Amino acid sequence: MRLKKEQSDKPREFCGIVGVYGAASASELAYMGLYALQHRGQESAGIVSTDGENVYRHVGTGLVADVFPDYSALKNLKGHIAIGHNRYSTMGSSQRLNSQPLLVNCKEGPLAIAHNGNLVNYKTLRKELESQGSIFQTTMDSEVILHLTARSHKKTLIESLIEALQRVRGAFSLVFLTRDKLIVARDPYGVRPLALGKMDDVTIAASESCVMDLIGAEYIRDVEPGELLVIDKTGFQSYRISEKIKSAHCIFEFVYFSRPDSRIFGDYVDKARRKLGKNLALEHPVDADIVISVPDSSNTAAIGYSRRTGIKFEIGLIRNHYIGRTFIQPVQSRRDINVRLKFNPVGGVLQDRRVVIVEDSIVRGTTLKNLVKLIRRAGTKEIHIRVSSPPIKYPCFYGMDFPTQAEVVASSQSVEEIREFLGVESLAYLSLESLLASVPNGEKGYCTACFSGEYPIPLEENGDKLAVDESLKTVEI
Amino acid sequence: MRLKKEQSDKPREFCGIVGVYGAASASELAYMGLYALQHRGQESAGIVSTDGENVYRHVGTGLVADVFPDYSALKNLKGHIAIGHNRYSTMGSSQRLNSQPLLVNCKEGPLAIAHNGNLVNYKTLRKELESQGSIFQTTMDSEVILHLTARSHKKTLIESLIEALQRVRGAFSLVFLTRDKLIVARDPYGVRPLALGKMDDVTIAASESCVMDLIGAEYIRDVEPGELLVIDKTGFQSYRISEKIKSAHCIFEFVYFSRPDSRIFGDYVDKARRKLGKNLALEHPVDADIVISVPDSSNTAAIGYSRRTGIKFEIGLIRNHYIGRTFIQPVQSRRDINVRLKFNPVGGVLQDRRVVIVEDSIVRGTTLKNLVKLIRRAGTKEIHIRVSSPPIKYPCFYGMDFPTQAEVVASSQSVEEIREFLGVESLAYLSLESLLASVPNGEKGYCTACFSGEYPIPLEENGDKLAVDESLKTVEI
Amino acid sequence: MRLKKEQSDKPREFCGIVGVYGAASASELAYMGLYALQHRGQESAGIVSTDGENVYRHVGTGLVADVFPDYSALKNLKGHIAIGHNRYSTMGSSQRLNSQPLLVNCKEGPLAIAHNGNLVNYKTLRKELESQGSIFQTTMDSEVILHLTARSHKKTLIESLIEALQRVRGAFSLVFLTRDKLIVARDPYGVRPLALGKMDDVTIAASESCVMDLIGAEYIRDVEPGELLVIDKTGFQSYRISEKIKSAHCIFEFVYFSRPDSRIFGDYVDKARRKLGKNLALEHPVDADIVISVPDSSNTAAIGYSRRTGIKFEIGLIRNHYIGRTFIQPVQSRRDINVRLKFNPVGGVLQDRRVVIVEDSIVRGTTLKNLVKLIRRAGTKEIHIRVSSPPIKYPCFYGMDFPTQAEVVASSQSVEEIREFLGVESLAYLSLESLLASVPNGEKGYCTACFSGEYPIPLEENGDKLAVDESLKTVEI
Amino acid sequence: MRLKKEQSDKPREFCGIVGVYGAASASELAYMGLYALQHRGQESAGIVSTDGENVYRHVGTGLVADVFPDYSALKNLKGHIAIGHNRYSTMGSSQRLNSQPLLVNCKEGPLAIAHNGNLVNYKTLRKELESQGSIFQTTMDSEVILHLTARSHKKTLIESLIEALQRVRGAFSLVFLTRDKLIVARDPYGVRPLALGKMDDVTIAASESCVMDLIGAEYIRDVEPGELLVIDKTGFQSYRISEKIKSAHCIFEFVYFSRPDSRIFGDYVDKARRKLGKNLALEHPVDADIVISVPDSSNTAAIGYSRRTGIKFEIGLIRNHYIGRTFIQPVQSRRDINVRLKFNPVGGVLQDRRVVIVEDSIVRGTTLKNLVKLIRRAGTKEIHIRVSSPPIKYPCFYGMDFPTQAEVVASSQSVEEIREFLGVESLAYLSLESLLASVPNGEKGYCTACFSGEYPIPLEENGDKLAVDESLKTVEI
Repeated sequence: MRLKKEQSDKPREFCGIVGVYGAASASELAYMGLYALQHRGQESAGIVSTDGENVYRHVGTGLVADVFPDYSALKNLKGHIAIGHNRYSTMGSSQRLNSQPLLVNCKEGPLAIAHNGNLVNYKTLRKELESQGSIFQTTMDSEVILHLTARSHKKTLIESLIEALQRVRGAFSLVFLTRDKLIVARDPYGVRPLALGKMDDVTIAASESCVMDLIGAEYIRDVEPGELLVIDKTGFQSYRISEKIKSAHCIFEFVYFSRPDSRIFGDYVDKARRKLGKNLALEHPVDADIVISVPDSSNTAAIGYSRRTGIKFEIGLIRNHYIGRTFIQPVQSRRDINVRLKFNPVGGVLQDRRVVIVEDSIVRGTTLKNLVKLIRRAGTKEIHIRVSSPPIKYPCFYGMDFPTQAEVVASSQSVEEIREFLGVESLAYLSLESLLASVPNGEKGYCTACFSGEYPIPLEENGDKLAVDESLKTVEI
Repeated sequence: MRLKKEQSDKPREFCGIVGVYGAASASELAYMGLYALQHRGQESAGIVSTDGENVYRHVGTGLVADVFPDYSALKNLKGHIAIGHNRYSTMGSSQRLNSQPLLVNCKEGPLAIAHNGNLVNYKTLRKELESQGSIFQTTMDSEVILHLTARSHKKTLIESLIEALQRVRGAFSLVFLTRDKLIVARDPYGVRPLALGKMDDVTIAASESCVMDLIGAEYIRDVEPGELLVIDKTGFQSYRISEKIKSAHCIFEFVYFSRPDSRIFGDYVDKARRKLGKNLALEHPVDADIVISVPDSSNTAAIGYSRRTGIKFEIGLIRNHYIGRTFIQPVQSRRDINVRLKFNPVGGVLQDRRVVIVEDSIVRGTTLKNLVKLIRRAGTKEIHIRVSSPPIKYPCFYGMDFPTQAEVVASSQSVEEIREFLGVESLAYLSLESLLASVPNGEKGYCTACFSGEYPIPLEENGDKLAVDESLKTVEI
Repeated sequence: MRLKKEQSDKPREFCGIVGVYGAASASELAYMGLYALQHRGQESAGIVSTDGENVYRHVGTGLVADVFPDYSALKNLKGHIAIGHNRYSTMGSSQRLNSQPLLVNCKEGPLAIAHNGNLVNYKTLRKELESQGSIFQTTMDSEVILHLTARSHKKTLIESLIEALQRVRGAFSLVFLTRDKLIVARDPYGVRPLALGKMDDVTIAASESCVMDLIGAEYIRDVEPGELLVIDKTGFQSYRISEKIKSAHCIFEFVYFSRPDSRIFGDYVDKARRKLGKNLALEHPVDADIVISVPDSSNTAAIGYSRRTGIKFEIGLIRNHYIGRTFIQPVQSRRDINVRLKFNPVGGVLQDRRVVIVEDSIVRGTTLKNLVKLIRRAGTKEIHIRVSSPPIKYPCFYGMDFPTQAEVVASSQSVEEIREFLGVESLAYLSLESLLASVPNGEKGYCTACFSGEYPIPLEENGDKLAVDESLKTVEI
Repeated sequence: MRLKKEQSDKPREFCGIVGVYGAASASELAYMGLYALQHRGQESAGIVSTDGENVYRHVGTGLVADVFPDYSALKNLKGHIAIGHNRYSTMGSSQRLNSQPLLVNCKEGPLAIAHNGNLVNYKTLRKELESQGSIFQTTMDSEVILHLTARSHKKTLIESLIEALQRVRGAFSLVFLTRDKLIVARDPYGVRPLALGKMDDVTIAASESCVMDLIGAEYIRDVEPGELLVIDKTGFQSYRISEKIKSAHCIFEFVYFSRPDSRIFGDYVDKARRKLGKNLALEHPVDADIVISVPDSSNTAAIGYSRRTGIKFEIGLIRNHYIGRTFIQPVQSRRDINVRLKFNPVGGVLQDRRVVIVEDSIVRGTTLKNLVKLIRRAGTKEIHIRVSSPPIKYPCFYGMDFPTQAEVVASSQSVEEIREFLGVESLAYLSLESLLASVPNGEKGYCTACFSGEYPIPLEENGDKLAVDESLKTVEI
């Protein structure tokens, strides 16, 4: 059994993207950006760059550090424009084949794309394009954007791109590279985040603002929902893909995906997460001795919970950060070995205590169940779980990778049944109302489909798994 | 300085191809076929296979043994149909990106292609296709065949393929793979060889018949010029791409490219090569003590020369077969180190002798010049070079990779000037008439363009380097 | 600039060791043990195992996951006995050559050793052994133990080992492997920890008890200072290397080295660390808004400090755990890039706050200085540093790897000078008395040499760097 | 089935060695030397060098080109003195562990050794040394030389070395490296070759003179049997290990091992091999149409046979030089696939002919049997095998690696039985008298033990396999 990275009770984000214009060595900044966005995708990474003449590409599977183990590949990624991409693999498809950024040649010359999000009308568009004689190289939905652009009869590449983006439906934060331009775009709903930054004459676009912090650039603003922005030697030109509509930001970015030190959808993630913990304390207090988190993702919510309830915050679990690259053979391993490899309970903290575990979300529940056992063995008197988001019940078609609906524990079981399954004294989830009250609001709107089943972007094909057409798959070894 | 494989005074063939239908493990036979065709391309190798459901692909750079270092990749290349490809790299372009077989998805499903030869109207067709919205992934001429097929309005894939092959012009021996078919085709001129073999229920197509020998299959016949052959569970169906016309077989296949144990264009290569040596002896006898070859490519011609003149054949040069993978730093190396690494003169054989060196062809002449010096230092009294083909003077647009015309020594210098450059007592080339008299004839025709400048297939664009459009290049690192 | 793993202001432990007897696949448990001890050594790893007949060895450089990237090496490490080792590299010496466990053949057959600690009379012993004709393969002090054993005239291997261990002086926690025995030993002072555990019929020895937790074994007791323990099919036999003397446990194990979830020298590390924070609060309170830690090593002390002072504990720094394997080229990087790569300040937490940073120790101070700048830029009003151990002023000769004394900031500068260097409002260290009051005492004694200069084990050669004899070094590439 | 390199009917030489003194970059010349000696050992390679201060070592498994895939390792092998080694693996032992040159530290400082040959009293010496407390790192006989040297009470290293070499018995051509010296030595019988060369101020020692040719150095003389030669800044000093005795040169070096372009034991190998062919023709003529060789090792003998008989020499087998690195799975392969992969018969040459195959030696006979089948299928009328050496009947204890005696076909079967086994019309071997008459003689003596059973160097232990003590083996993974 090879343990997969982050094989936990968490949904997976598909991607992190970054774009750089105007740097002496754009690929180096893109590399740093991918490194800062490593949490958004750990299965493959890649960069495309250009010096205005040639276009260079390097992609590979694994962490950024696996794909770029030394400086040699970066050195060859010459030029002042670069885009980069981290991604999770999709099942049954070739990882290398489906690595981004994608790079193709069309009549306007080389065109590269990196995409975060998911298109819901991909299958229909692909069939239409193939019937017209288009050849597909990958099974990624992103490729239809390139074909629609190549087939557009508009006069300029920008017009063609806009036409193409008006035909696709779904979630997309995009960076494009041509020989002389960096182009960034975001779907009309603004589902996934996309930030803009500046450092002297260098422009940076990135999924999260933590990229700006690492590079030393200044965060300027978000790319607006429905905006397409062209950055070249003449400066910025902003275009609209659509009229402004009510946004549908993925609220899960606040709950779990984004880094706590990032600013997305107008606020610090850390701040929202502390509020989640505080509101959770208001809704679901408990009489206990200590509050612990499941490090590191629920640290901030746990501190919020501790602060509001006055129950002491303790470090009750030590996380082993080397886990990502470890395998354990089944022959020697107990059932709970994958939890054990990742977390070790701190005996002195837990013994004889009534413990509140604050967790940000529960998908399958199996990891948490094993974790509870581990904590129980350390001699706790009571275990209470508080979840800083509502029960996940519905699939996401906009870029989050949940297990199948049947595997999601809350899709078919009541809170009481889940409590019993986990084997804890009490279990409570934050309500959807409290969740929405914890994040920056005003005129902003959120996608809460995975909790509520209300899908803001129309689904084409009745809730089937839309993104991957298995009949098309080819396998790159 | 990293010595490139076969950095010699020889032209380079672009490719070797193989196709297998009906084997329990088709990719294993394809692997063996590529191994037997290693001499036709040493820069990259690849196999695509299918089990009727999925299509599998594995390509990489280097020798077949580098790309398939153990059984793991082959094991994953499942199924009863497979095609394979060996190739030389093209300058300035990505080796991995341009590795064959190419595999794409079009409306008829997955389609893979492996190509030996060169298309002369590639640029025109590519521009036309791009203007219609086709996206190109590679800079290989072979890709236009796929786009033309995908865009054809014919009802079946076979009809679409034939239409596409009627639009391209140039040299092509091709193997295609679909989920249920192996398809092979050859241009109307039959420029490159393509043989068919059988082993029980397994059908094999390969550039040279030596593949049949290695696999243990029986050679049946050549694919005919202008023929397209479909092999599937119903058997063989033969189609015509064009009317029968006078063939233009590449005569250089007999001179140097093909393995001496192969049968091509109707005869054993070995037999033709011995005749080249004998006719060379008739045209250009010399008074000498021993005949030596430049091993291994001119061995047979040298034996032919020895037989006809009665001058003793000796092994005067020991070739180091490990050379392909060696590097030597310039700091320690003398001018002639690359020759020295490859060949060592046998002192006891050469000392005080008048030596005839039989060589099959001369391109730049620089390697041969250094070899002459090495042999001279071994104490020879006289050195006479006899070349078993005419002077190369013109570029090839049908798939041979010469250096630029300026670098080809015979394009601008007389035989006497070359003799002086090489520093030998005498130099003589076989005449074109004798060359044509040495190969099987009858109604067959040959392409002798590199010697005569007469191009049997019309060139579209006035003799520019047609095959690689540098403006389109992208670089995969 | 390739960032070295853990290139921080921290001293480095040399090693983690593990021994397993009686498991179906001992090497798998050793592997899991090394994984749990990864924090004690990240430059090389290795395992030696035996099935009673052959002895198997696999060592390599890098993390455990680099040395054992898949199951293949473990599968070949057959047998029911195994020992394992993690280590830091020593400067100027070959990493591979000096990888442990060492394995040699002597008259008693194969003998393998893994060592945590440092011998102070190594040079003298090596010279003596070499003058008698012994050949050294490595530059590791551990090798003299093997030579002394091989040259002993005692009748049994155990007696020979005891004689050898009586001749060496310094810190040593050791595991040995022979064809039929696991042997563990600890120096008379008990400088480094060494725990014993049981799981059914399997015996485990390991540097820290967290290994028992991961494997699922039960912690039994520590190997006693001066004890040599033989584990074989007849059970346990305990021998004494020396009379019982006052112990000299490395107090830095409590401050920084050991994992917080481990039990060493009779207590949970976590508990001691919380007391360090509380005593630090008592000695050096400050008027501030929030307490933050430098994650993860000072988390527990920071919570202790927060608890005692009542100042809120916050997560003010996000640590990027992918840092270990990243490189950044100097051309793009600012001075503080290595800090920036590792930590990102959380703007929302730090802005306009008076912040206490609790850190466990300061060596050079350069990383902390850069971290202070980073935190300052996030808009803090005041920064106060509290260190949960006294100033480090003296070198360690018992197995800790400090920089040279000149580089250790507290060896030559006053607290006020260091405060100025770091650029903070205030700086205070825990006193030695408070440190000793925070750890389990009774009859136990501690080595505090790095703080006090009082060396419990006599140093042979006047405080020179004793462990590495540079004149002997050879370089394995 | 992974085909082993050179898995043929040939005995294997253990090693090639090279030593360089006085070059700007000695390791580069050593590398070139190893490359020229690749035929003497293809399982591992290594170089040790020194710049007078540090000693550098790089060893690995595989071909020279595998161990030194680029310039990086060579660049780190600094200094003006270097020794290098190619070797075959020994069964059951670790390849990496037993890679040479060996490098150890003894009281005189670093000492490295590279050895071609085999010691017959290794086991006795090792036991004696271990009982005195010496620790062995490898299972190579060469290591005892180092221990004997380290334990010598002589005053200088040179005297110690001579004393050590006087205690070992067997075949040894040796190169040693110290911080300031290159030392070369050869056993009193001169079993293995060892040549000396000069290039300006650089001194080269190498197994064969072809190294001098490649490097561009001049061959001076052989190291004399029983001579130890010290090369340092003061020049050459020659010492005697023993009185001069009748030499026992390995006659198999002329038959098969050495390169035809090398000069050994006073003559060109090529010249001797041609005489073998001529004398074979005199002893065993046959009525046939063509003579072919099994390329490349019997080429010269075949030409000699052809010359003397007047039967035409032809190239009847094409050898695939890529074979060394290829694997074929058994599932698809026929019995004769390993022969088929290596050789392809030339149909046009063999059909309807009566063929003489000249082979240099037969060990198992299985490969030759398959080759005969292959040739038979090409349509030959008759096949006659002529072997240019006598039947191999006895094991070699001086450095040749035959299969076990039971596997050597001629040890138990008559020539007629072997002929029947091979399935040929006739079979004849060269007589021992003719063999001795073919090589340079005068006062020289040869070891013919594998043919005659007369062992010139006394065997210690009654003809058991002496060199490898299996009970000592440890396994490096």
